[in-house]
Amino acid sequence: MFFRTNKFQYHAKPAAPDPVYAKKLQEVLGGQWGEISVMMTYLFQGWNCRAPAKYRDMILDIGTEEIAHVEMLATMIARLLETSPVEAREDAAKDSVVGAVMGGARVEDVIVGGMNPQHAIVAGMGATPTDSVGYPWTSRYTVSSGNLLADFRFNVTAESQGRLQVCRLYEMTDDPGVRDMLSFLIARDTMHQNQWLAAIKELEEDGLDQTPAPMSFPQEKELSQVAYQFWNCSEGTESRQGQWAEGPTPDGKGQFEYLADPQPLGEEVTELSQLDPRLHSTPKKPMPPMSS
Amino acid sequence: MFFRTNKFQYHAKPAAPDPVYAKKLQEVLGGQWGEISVMMTYLFQGWNCRAPAKYRDMILDIGTEEIAHVEMLATMIARLLETSPVEAREDAAKDSVVGAVMGGARVEDVIVGGMNPQHAIVAGMGATPTDSVGYPWTSRYTVSSGNLLADFRFNVTAESQGRLQVCRLYEMTDDPGVRDMLSFLIARDTMHQNQWLAAIKELEEDGLDQTPAPMSFPQEKELSQVAYQFWNCSEGTESRQGQWAEGPTPDGKGQFEYLADPQPLGEEVTELSQLDPRLHSTPKKPMPPMSS
Amino acid sequence: MFFRTNKFQYHAKPAAPDPVYAKKLQEVLGGQWGEISVMMTYLFQGWNCRAPAKYRDMILDIGTEEIAHVEMLATMIARLLETSPVEAREDAAKDSVVGAVMGGARVEDVIVGGMNPQHAIVAGMGATPTDSVGYPWTSRYTVSSGNLLADFRFNVTAESQGRLQVCRLYEMTDDPGVRDMLSFLIARDTMHQNQWLAAIKELEEDGLDQTPAPMSFPQEKELSQVAYQFWNCSEGTESRQGQWAEGPTPDGKGQFEYLADPQPLGEEVTELSQLDPRLHSTPKKPMPPMSS
Amino acid sequence: MFFRTNKFQYHAKPAAPDPVYAKKLQEVLGGQWGEISVMMTYLFQGWNCRAPAKYRDMILDIGTEEIAHVEMLATMIARLLETSPVEAREDAAKDSVVGAVMGGARVEDVIVGGMNPQHAIVAGMGATPTDSVGYPWTSRYTVSSGNLLADFRFNVTAESQGRLQVCRLYEMTDDPGVRDMLSFLIARDTMHQNQWLAAIKELEEDGLDQTPAPMSFPQEKELSQVAYQFWNCSEGTESRQGQWAEGPTPDGKGQFEYLADPQPLGEEVTELSQLDPRLHSTPKKPMPPMSS
Amino acid sequence: MFFRTNKFQYHAKPAAPDPVYAKKLQEVLGGQWGEISVMMTYLFQGWNCRAPAKYRDMILDIGTEEIAHVEMLATMIARLLETSPVEAREDAAKDSVVGAVMGGARVEDVIVGGMNPQHAIVAGMGATPTDSVGYPWTSRYTVSSGNLLADFRFNVTAESQGRLQVCRLYEMTDDPGVRDMLSFLIARDTMHQNQWLAAIKELEEDGLDQTPAPMSFPQEKELSQVAYQFWNCSEGTESRQGQWAEGPTPDGKGQFEYLADPQPLGEEVTELSQLDPRLHSTPKKPMPPMSS
Amino acid sequence: MFFRTNKFQYHAKPAAPDPVYAKKLQEVLGGQWGEISVMMTYLFQGWNCRAPAKYRDMILDIGTEEIAHVEMLATMIARLLETSPVEAREDAAKDSVVGAVMGGARVEDVIVGGMNPQHAIVAGMGATPTDSVGYPWTSRYTVSSGNLLADFRFNVTAESQGRLQVCRLYEMTDDPGVRDMLSFLIARDTMHQNQWLAAIKELEEDGLDQTPAPMSFPQEKELSQVAYQFWNCSEGTESRQGQWAEGPTPDGKGQFEYLADPQPLGEEVTELSQLDPRLHSTPKKPMPPMSS
Repeated sequence: MFFRTNKFQYHAKPAAPDPVYAKKLQEVLGGQWGEISVMMTYLFQGWNCRAPAKYRDMILDIGTEEIAHVEMLATMIARLLETSPVEAREDAAKDSVVGAVMGGARVEDVIVGGMNPQHAIVAGMGATPTDSVGYPWTSRYTVSSGNLLADFRFNVTAESQGRLQVCRLYEMTDDPGVRDMLSFLIARDTMHQNQWLAAIKELEEDGLDQTPAPMSFPQEKELSQVAYQFWNCSEGTESRQGQWAEGPTPDGKGQFEYLADPQPLGEEVTELSQLDPRLHSTPKKPMPPMSS
Repeated sequence: MFFRTNKFQYHAKPAAPDPVYAKKLQEVLGGQWGEISVMMTYLFQGWNCRAPAKYRDMILDIGTEEIAHVEMLATMIARLLETSPVEAREDAAKDSVVGAVMGGARVEDVIVGGMNPQHAIVAGMGATPTDSVGYPWTSRYTVSSGNLLADFRFNVTAESQGRLQVCRLYEMTDDPGVRDMLSFLIARDTMHQNQWLAAIKELEEDGLDQTPAPMSFPQEKELSQVAYQFWNCSEGTESRQGQWAEGPTPDGKGQFEYLADPQPLGEEVTELSQLDPRLHSTPKKPMPPMSS
Repeated sequence: MFFRTNKFQYHAKPAAPDPVYAKKLQEVLGGQWGEISVMMTYLFQGWNCRAPAKYRDMILDIGTEEIAHVEMLATMIARLLETSPVEAREDAAKDSVVGAVMGGARVEDVIVGGMNPQHAIVAGMGATPTDSVGYPWTSRYTVSSGNLLADFRFNVTAESQGRLQVCRLYEMTDDPGVRDMLSFLIARDTMHQNQWLAAIKELEEDGLDQTPAPMSFPQEKELSQVAYQFWNCSEGTESRQGQWAEGPTPDGKGQFEYLADPQPLGEEVTELSQLDPRLHSTPKKPMPPMSS
Repeated sequence: MFFRTNKFQYHAKPAAPDPVYAKKLQEVLGGQWGEISVMMTYLFQGWNCRAPAKYRDMILDIGTEEIAHVEMLATMIARLLETSPVEAREDAAKDSVVGAVMGGARVEDVIVGGMNPQHAIVAGMGATPTDSVGYPWTSRYTVSSGNLLADFRFNVTAESQGRLQVCRLYEMTDDPGVRDMLSFLIARDTMHQNQWLAAIKELEEDGLDQTPAPMSFPQEKELSQVAYQFWNCSEGTESRQGQWAEGPTPDGKGQFEYLADPQPLGEEVTELSQLDPRLHSTPKKPMPPMSS
Repeated sequence: MFFRTNKFQYHAKPAAPDPVYAKKLQEVLGGQWGEISVMMTYLFQGWNCRAPAKYRDMILDIGTEEIAHVEMLATMIARLLETSPVEAREDAAKDSVVGAVMGGARVEDVIVGGMNPQHAIVAGMGATPTDSVGYPWTSRYTVSSGNLLADFRFNVTAESQGRLQVCRLYEMTDDPGVRDMLSFLIARDTMHQNQWLAAIKELEEDGLDQTPAPMSFPQEKELSQVAYQFWNCSEGTESRQGQWAEGPTPDGKGQFEYLADPQPLGEEVTELSQLDPRLHSTPKKPMPPMSS
Repeated sequence: MFFRTNKFQYHAKPAAPDPVYAKKLQEVLGGQWGEISVMMTYLFQGWNCRAPAKYRDMILDIGTEEIAHVEMLATMIARLLETSPVEAREDAAKDSVVGAVMGGARVEDVIVGGMNPQHAIVAGMGATPTDSVGYPWTSRYTVSSGNLLADFRFNVTAESQGRLQVCRLYEMTDDPGVRDMLSFLIARDTMHQNQWLAAIKELEEDGLDQTPAPMSFPQEKELSQVAYQFWNCSEGTESRQGQWAEGPTPDGKGQFEYLADPQPLGEEVTELSQLDPRLHSTPKKPMPPMSS
């Protein structure tokens, strides 16, 4: 069960409204790699966890923290929106220089064109659980597979993509209040990248999994002949120049082999079988009329 | 530009039709972590790549290989579907034992209930670019961020989740032809997990990025105070028992610190501002009537 | 079966084209609370209705009327789009003042930035069944549950959210033709809010349902101990100041009780069970190797 | 900021696994009217709230409680899934009676046909944030409009549809553990229906809004002529028999008027204008060839 | 504006309930090629039409007819669902033979496994605007481009895919009532295929468009060198055997040319440019540290 | 299996960056009728094909070519994005004239308002598999039905809608590099419209299908009475003026018949049946209390 304090985890106050920036900031709230995605991913991974208790508790700690990040971003966006498109239109109409050049209403369009119109029409200048193009958050952004190595790799990814996006957004504003909050989120993403990398090491040292994940599948059942081959499927061999093309493999179990001119191992593509004519698909040759 | 040979990369022939298994196998064709996802992810990462040529070429090699995996799975599914729900219904009606127990049409329902009905109605017993519940593939499953460390972490994840799902599907069938093809895919996922892990090492050794990604963001701008703190936001301290709670951090730049009883750093949650009444949101107190 | 007259239910003619406003107006055509949503909701509620005939007929009357609203909005939008982005670009290039300040092509961007680009590229300046950010209408916006009290409450909501959005859009334009049409839609939403509230009363007076819906579920089967308790799950007790915290409940069956410091009633969260290793999930402890 | 206790709000333990029921139960976890929908709706309404503090606090209390409901349902589903499709297949193969009648593998299909295949393949027998057909949860299920009357009406709806679905699910199982948890959820939905109805009354008594919402829009601007008319748009006049067809309107501001044979008020549908030929739409008559 | 009669366009009554078939039938109600798709496509094409009046009127005639098809299918599905999963479970429990073989509750699973669970839980045994896997109808299934030749080609497709699906569904049932209704829909699809083919001829004879659509784009601006070439991009030359490989082209303007061994016309793929480092993408070589 | 050359099929280089145009160009990459749609449609049609080999090979030739079109568009978009929103903001701030009129940051908004913000935040100025409003590509845009006549009609449509959109985009830019690439794509669409029309003729001449598709369904089973009737369901009889209203039908099997005043053929709409009360739907009359 959950409880909520009445303080933000960190400050969430802009120096001034900026509805166009609010639209962009939505990406890290409701986008593919936004805070809702990590909140929901971690909570579900924790609730579904069948591994030792320390993992479950750790996952739920961070999942619970992420709710606070969602809260901060939602509040920041609501504050960035504390201005009105109706007022903007009126101001523009009054301003003769702008009016002369652009024709009144068009200045509103600059703002509203840059704004997400749903911020005004749908949400009354509040945050929405959507991304920077207004696409709704979907749970297909989350992962909880039951295999923690596979999932922790996802979590490292999410904290990397998330930190990248927040860094980009940091560069796109000068508002000190916004930058202050983003500097907090960037630091937490630094922590969380480290945390999930440490958790991967812990899993491996606990003998619970290793590369190639999942280790519980007997490796002798896979087609070992192709398990460490690099297939050069496109013209040019620049791809031979990396450590993925020769030398020991990271799992410590093989040597990379570079196939410069790979050949198919499968059979000639042959025709599929004819089906029951009552499927009304195209047959191989004209059919006699069907009786009713 | 691309060309297509007329051989499969590996065999793709089941011993017998199994339309219910065909539905399940769709997951690794058109699901979140299916072959279409890695094909599209790698191709877009390659086309958008602004890093040294060896990376671009390597990414496109594997992206091109994945088209062949999509081809094999689509063909395998089409062959697993080489039977007809209409015939199944007729057979069941003729079979008196089954008829007595289950009532004819119901046996069809067993099969069709387990089948994806769109395999028959929409696709004429062909593969579809959807997952095992019939949800369509969407490009929100892909990532191409311009930052290769963040993206390669995604790629390791995709190969881990993908290998996990194929291993599970391997256990869910006894068909030797299906298992043969899956043993090939599992081995390629072994290769690709290793390949992306090697590529991450290469990136780091080339000095192009490192943890915390992106390294190009000046770390002194993040709120260093919270950059290595573990916040214990849920009851219990089992989470203290892992290497994510103390000791050096994986990025080699800090020490984990465990906050057993973390306190909010932000301000008291205060009220948001009143907005222009023409937004018709709920005000703080009753308003005088608006004039027209 | 349906027939179509060749008159609009009300006027649908703007004074002048305004492609940026056309984008915004899409919200009440194809958005979550737009006219397509109520049209489809009411028609399906009517077609699925198993209640007395007066309800079915009433629901279908209004469902049929809503088709006319969709028609008016689609036409209005097509007329607001009777201008061309190609011409706009040329005009801008000719206008030296604008050209000097903004650089020709950029003025087009103001307009096209504010426009939905699909209006030009996809729809040839016609209306689309999408919302103001271009997100397609989806039938998950509709409800037809078989329980009319639950559904009529949805209908009141839809007419409230819809009227709110139309009022906001009214404030965002000065075009008298647009405002005229919106004044009609706002009035119909007034009617429909009243109509569904009256229908809820009728249902209750007919003895067909009541709060808590559905009344057909024997209330003694619910956990009566918690049926009228307010749980104060967040810090602060401002929430005690409303009539939801004490006094008789609206269903006339209880008294509100305020739990200032609520405690969980459930068991300690314990570990989930270990699963079949062939699921390849993370186990509780290292497993012996699996045999093939 | 949020914290998590280590107890469930109420018990969440089934008597026995039942993976087919687990699929159905997903509806009230990740469906349109499931617990994720109310959790996210209430949290965003609270974070965006600009009304008096008692409303904000009340909304966040219930939003925080709903996280606990999501937690209970996720756990219940994970426990209902504590069985394996691989084992089921093996058991069936061993059972000669079943084998004789249905042919071994088919019994698995009965179970897996009724199961969500993603529970095994994707989630390793864990809960997923999807509904009972596997459709992912989307934030388009939520509402936070800035207008509390419109939003509270949505909330009453959500608690009604939700209670209805839980009651239906209660009838579809005999498992005492599942029924125990559902009896708790049904009771909380009773509370929450009452709570939102009380909140609507409070809003009206505080003078903050009333029917027709939003009351801040000057009603003289709407087309009063049609504001209380019932338009009988479908054949038959059974719809005249309800209190929505005559008598005072619920807002206390008018009288219903029944139009048995309503006539369009709008103009004849006339042709839309011709557009710039460079849009390459179909013109009204053949065009001379365009010069390059 | 629209009106509704109280008669179905044709009969819509099954001989008996069949909830599993109801699930399948949803495909032609709310699927990609179902009746909602053609209804919405034709109505929007009509409302957006800027071509001569006869086209607009014809399109709206058929769009209006399609509403009646939606009505018939919704009603048919509601009637196929006139049975209860709760009763089915009880019946199964009473039936000892079934009970002995399959274990009581499992028979329900056969039915409910084949059923769409949302028919019971969400819709109370009513039709839903979704397809046969429960995926919601989306307006991305519709087209209204402003170019009637392009759109009529879509319409022919829709009537072909639709007729194909209805024919398949006809084969999957023996219910005479269902087959009667389907024989009506199949006949109407025969009409509508013919109607749109005739409309394409009319458009061409009226000089309003022709192949290649849109004819208003000056053909001398396209790269004429490749306008009639067949590129053989996959191994094997079976593709040379059709009339698409040599002889006059259907537009009467050229001759097909078969390139057995096509070569790229574009430049060598070269590297993309380096971007502003503040995008934090992977650079071409290690960067000096950024100053804050 | 597939291989990739290192040359583009045709040139893909703009004269200058234009991030606003890049957003628009996304429509023909990842939109409903973009290159990803045809690539995936043709590949799946080919892989699922059970018709004579020449069809399969032809379909796969063109499917493979389309991968190259996706590659060209992705590259073109990445190059149009070779500029930075951060730099744009700085330039604007330095430019006093623009600064005076529009206020610095607003000029950035013009650009970013017209841009897709995800190009910068999510993709680091790379192409994305989405359309011009940022909506992700979904596989519901594709078709592979097993019936080639129905599918080839879709393919003609796709090449028509696609050519139309590319022509519109051609008019919206003056960049000679962009126009050069578009002139190639327009020419290929000319080829492909012709190719699919030729393939339809081939299918008919091979006796594999004909209008009305599918011809394998015995036409005597359809309700012949309505198979060639035009129903005039909307007011006005302009629709009588086309060749769809009288004369021989395109399938050569009938004569069009115009029903100026069509009457329903179905029964009076009667009430649906009452259901099991445990579904908790609204009943026809008040029910006695249910026992627990």
